[in-house]
Amino acid sequence: MFEPDFTKSENSLLPVIVQDGKTNEVLMLAYLNREAWQQSLDTGFATYWSRSRQQIWVKGETSGNSQEIKEILVDCDLDTVIFKVLQKGGAACHEGYRSCFFRKVENDELQTVGERVFDPDKVYKE
Amino acid sequence: MFEPDFTKSENSLLPVIVQDGKTNEVLMLAYLNREAWQQSLDTGFATYWSRSRQQIWVKGETSGNSQEIKEILVDCDLDTVIFKVLQKGGAACHEGYRSCFFRKVENDELQTVGERVFDPDKVYKE
Repeated sequence: MFEPDFTKSENSLLPVIVQDGKTNEVLMLAYLNREAWQQSLDTGFATYWSRSRQQIWVKGETSGNSQEIKEILVDCDLDTVIFKVLQKGGAACHEGYRSCFFRKVENDELQTVGERVFDPDKVYKE
Repeated sequence: MFEPDFTKSENSLLPVIVQDGKTNEVLMLAYLNREAWQQSLDTGFATYWSRSRQQIWVKGETSGNSQEIKEILVDCDLDTVIFKVLQKGGAACHEGYRSCFFRKVENDELQTVGERVFDPDKVYKE
């Protein structure tokens, strides 16, 4: 039974790159602990460790924008993972963009290149 | 002058996802400190912080497989970077594969899906 090498990281968290399974666009980077990894495998839906909230985070639980896992890749050192996913709702970023990487660096400044798919004020309510 | 938020990480290292600029294939994940970021911008070639060697690492210095940076993206939290690159020599992985992510998880086991581009024994000599 394969498991990534969680001992490689001091805090037992490994980065997971989340890619659109069809276009290969990178949607976000998140972190996995052992529990999040296992829950992702068991449910087939991306589940991360939220470093800010310090808890298991089922992606899309609040927004509905869950990620169905289509393929899992691991790197040569077994300490980084790729989830290739089907992104529900068309947007991975909490700011309403399809990808969290919606800005590029151009002449030392940031320039928005992504398109907003939803209005975060309407999706995340207190 | 834009700079990612290196204060977000306890060790001042930020992850950088390295993608093939044409196919969007993820080639590797590496880490940047402030010096590596600045050197990458200044030279136009991917320069990382090697966590194992604890030093600046100009990608391809030994193997010749350097990475010319074509585009730089940053995420919503400004603490993760994407380098879209032109991979010289056709392979990013020190094991000779095009991508470090040359294995997938299938039925709880690892299965090699990448193709070897070079023989690491012939490239890395003591």
